[in-house]
Amino acid sequence: MNNYVVPKRGFTPSEFEIRVERAQQVMQRHQLDAIFVTTPPNVRYFTGFDSQFWESPTRPWFVVVPLSGAPTAVIPEIGAPEMALTWMKDIRTWPAPVPEDDGVSLLKTTLEALPRRFGRIGAELGREMSLRMPVVDLLRLRESLGSEIVDGSPAIWQMRMVKTEAEIEHIHYICSIACDAYEALPAQLSIGESEREAVRKLRIDIARRGADSTPFMPAISGPGGVPQIVCGPHDRALEKGDILFIDTGSTFDGYFCDFDRNYAIGTISAEAARVHEALWLATEAGIAAAVPGATTDDVWRAMNKIIEDAGAIGNNVGRLGHGLGLQLTEPPSHRPGDGTVVTENMVLTIEPGMEYAPGKMIVHEENIAVTRDGPRLLTKRAPREMPVIR
Amino acid sequence: MNNYVVPKRGFTPSEFEIRVERAQQVMQRHQLDAIFVTTPPNVRYFTGFDSQFWESPTRPWFVVVPLSGAPTAVIPEIGAPEMALTWMKDIRTWPAPVPEDDGVSLLKTTLEALPRRFGRIGAELGREMSLRMPVVDLLRLRESLGSEIVDGSPAIWQMRMVKTEAEIEHIHYICSIACDAYEALPAQLSIGESEREAVRKLRIDIARRGADSTPFMPAISGPGGVPQIVCGPHDRALEKGDILFIDTGSTFDGYFCDFDRNYAIGTISAEAARVHEALWLATEAGIAAAVPGATTDDVWRAMNKIIEDAGAIGNNVGRLGHGLGLQLTEPPSHRPGDGTVVTENMVLTIEPGMEYAPGKMIVHEENIAVTRDGPRLLTKRAPREMPVIR
Repeated sequence: MNNYVVPKRGFTPSEFEIRVERAQQVMQRHQLDAIFVTTPPNVRYFTGFDSQFWESPTRPWFVVVPLSGAPTAVIPEIGAPEMALTWMKDIRTWPAPVPEDDGVSLLKTTLEALPRRFGRIGAELGREMSLRMPVVDLLRLRESLGSEIVDGSPAIWQMRMVKTEAEIEHIHYICSIACDAYEALPAQLSIGESEREAVRKLRIDIARRGADSTPFMPAISGPGGVPQIVCGPHDRALEKGDILFIDTGSTFDGYFCDFDRNYAIGTISAEAARVHEALWLATEAGIAAAVPGATTDDVWRAMNKIIEDAGAIGNNVGRLGHGLGLQLTEPPSHRPGDGTVVTENMVLTIEPGMEYAPGKMIVHEENIAVTRDGPRLLTKRAPREMPVIR
Repeated sequence: MNNYVVPKRGFTPSEFEIRVERAQQVMQRHQLDAIFVTTPPNVRYFTGFDSQFWESPTRPWFVVVPLSGAPTAVIPEIGAPEMALTWMKDIRTWPAPVPEDDGVSLLKTTLEALPRRFGRIGAELGREMSLRMPVVDLLRLRESLGSEIVDGSPAIWQMRMVKTEAEIEHIHYICSIACDAYEALPAQLSIGESEREAVRKLRIDIARRGADSTPFMPAISGPGGVPQIVCGPHDRALEKGDILFIDTGSTFDGYFCDFDRNYAIGTISAEAARVHEALWLATEAGIAAAVPGATTDDVWRAMNKIIEDAGAIGNNVGRLGHGLGLQLTEPPSHRPGDGTVVTENMVLTIEPGMEYAPGKMIVHEENIAVTRDGPRLLTKRAPREMPVIR
């Protein structure tokens, strides 16, 4: 279906060793004896463990990364055969579900056997992640553990925000597949078909081209723009003068793309075309600003100036782009006050958007990797003029 | 693509009123002045709000259900236009993401304005759910709130475990679609193709037949059985004598099916066929046992006897079925000690499985609704003899 070189699935043990080593350097700076993680992206980041079984919230899973040495998986028996296929050597299990003690005492034993230097253990207690275990179990563990359990999210984001080359190639591949499917959509879709039909066609095409899944594909249409960009599709039929907005977070081997495209349904108004042009230029400016040493505030400012000059009356998104990787959205955020320094090997979305009249919003989005020499597009740049569906 | 009557998407305001009323009766018994929920299934259960935007963990969302009166949504601005399309009247927003105070003070104000009778607020702190907000924010809220925040999960599960007729029709529809796709698979697949190819074909077919998404489709193959049932697919090619196991949690309008099918690749061993027959009979026994007034222990026992008699050497799943609905897996669990009384309008999986030789497991699964007159199959019963792929 495509001519791209498919990245090898999974990662080498040396890739995981690099990740753990970098994690341990960060833990040292944050004075953590260990971190333990519970969520799909964090477990996968350190182990390579791939499963859709996260969809079942019944059983908690834990991976302990110590300040030195290899990580330990503390997981339900049901997951052991597959975890054994990863680079992980130390796998401890219990016969979950056992509501009376679902892995908590096994996790405690594992943590208490580690050397104690700082007396602090990091967990996923903070921003842009949520702990995937019952809070009552965390509180119980916190009371009985010799060490303090602190918010490990700043440390974890420092680890994950900068990608390896192999991670970037994964993201590039899923971006390429999805771009091709978006390009092919106008030939498949006609005025009068519904938003839902558009999504179904695009989903199927992205799957055919080699994506593993499409957990995120909001779509919405409206005359000259849309009221929001994160929900839908609905059964609304596409009408002349509409803009059809479709975003996608599709995945390959765990890694997300996250970008959108806009389609003109027949002819759109001159005003909508003018706003679209301004956003295309804002995207150019945002991409150009994403160089090593700049801050996320700088990237935001570069886009925001153009948007404001173009007459924005609002934007309910709250930021103009963000990180991505094993999650659809990750830190940092392009917003005033975020203050993250852009560094080599970050992967970012550039996402300017504006409401130019009540209920009429247009949003653009591209994905880039930051290289030593500046930004590198991972998506194929959206056409300067909106593609037309007839 | 199919002849089924497609259930109307969404639910009437009176359906939500019934859900809230039932919730309030449960809250009265649990002595809760309110519950607040943060997770996709619980937010959807009370509001009907449908979004794939949950894939982005950046912004927390809250819905407050008080002991009397209508619920309140406390949500990021980005979600307000879509929430306004639901039956919800009271929608309060903040311009998320604002890491300094991401909705916490707005949630606090909302909770503190409620009448105080018990001084207890329930939250998603317990089993089979995980709180979708930073734990540090919960702890901050807990310290400053006049009322105690307690584990609301037992109350929430009491509310959700018994379905409405409309919920059951949603589940029945997605079960029917998925069953048809499984039936059509052998004609599309040949010996030598890979597990991954099988999944891609089945995924696309289920989408074509009208499913909204397929968040869960593990697949694995092996000679005479499989080592696990929750991970995969891999690139392994299907060989004569293999059993190919594919499970799916696909959705329609938010509701899951959760069942599996097994395929014989060419001819399987007599031993594997014998175990398959025993599991088919165990499924019959499990279905028959799921009558109002029985317990989940009884359902487990009915299946377990047949499995043990058939020579099971283990089962790493930890239970023989569970609830389902807005989640792939929900309470109760068919396991000794669970003790839940089976009642009318529960939707359950009947999932006997056994390892009969090391690394050789076979698992069956069907979905049923419990009616006054006994169990009603929502899936089309799996054929007694394993379908063959040639």
